[in-house]
Amino acid sequence: MQKPREESMQEIVLKPIGIIQSPISDPDKAPRHGSESTVSGKLIVDEQYRDALLGLEKGSRIVILYWMHLAERDVLQVHPRRDYTRPLRGVFTTRSPVRPNPISLDTVKVTGIEGTVIDVIGLDAVDGTPLLDIKSVA
Amino acid sequence: MQKPREESMQEIVLKPIGIIQSPISDPDKAPRHGSESTVSGKLIVDEQYRDALLGLEKGSRIVILYWMHLAERDVLQVHPRRDYTRPLRGVFTTRSPVRPNPISLDTVKVTGIEGTVIDVIGLDAVDGTPLLDIKSVA
Repeated sequence: MQKPREESMQEIVLKPIGIIQSPISDPDKAPRHGSESTVSGKLIVDEQYRDALLGLEKGSRIVILYWMHLAERDVLQVHPRRDYTRPLRGVFTTRSPVRPNPISLDTVKVTGIEGTVIDVIGLDAVDGTPLLDIKSVA
Repeated sequence: MQKPREESMQEIVLKPIGIIQSPISDPDKAPRHGSESTVSGKLIVDEQYRDALLGLEKGSRIVILYWMHLAERDVLQVHPRRDYTRPLRGVFTTRSPVRPNPISLDTVKVTGIEGTVIDVIGLDAVDGTPLLDIKSVA
């Protein structure tokens, strides 16, 4: 049986690059997918990453990665979209926040930039969510 | 000036869920975007996450998140696609592997499943890359 090599399974340490300011405080009220969201908020990027924002433009769409700090990490199966009439599925076949490494991705639109504070629309993260990365849309 | 709250900036520990087996050994030869890739390889998921694969189907497209373990984390600006005729940009406005938290995402197609080993096509990761997450396509 094939097994992952030991050295590739070592723990990895992430450092948040900022936080997400959002009007969503209750994860149960978050849109189920970013594509369904018309929620506006701010990405408060830490000052030390200012240079990494060079060239960011108002009106552009960006991909954000964030850490779902409220999500359970030790549950491996869920009912999709919390619909208990649907059979259990492995979390790796769903978009559930519940998963061993609860990293979410969302595409949002930049509506304003002031220093390292980025106004965006299309959020599905709760207020205070650690921000991990920002990428251009592929 | 708005600053991220202290408690949201604490370090986060990830645990790889497996590794990626790929014919790509040199990151300089990796396809620049997953969408350009016709590379086949395997996701070797650790046995402890077997239940999280329930319902995964051959032929389906999945999103994988992985840790670019060879990427620099302390460079904040790059020439896009390593084209030095193009001006420097902040890494957060690019898809460069270089970034503070080098997490990449790629959409691949499942071509076979045997236990916790998943055959896929469309890879852009190098051999031995730590796998962080598998999600359904949104």
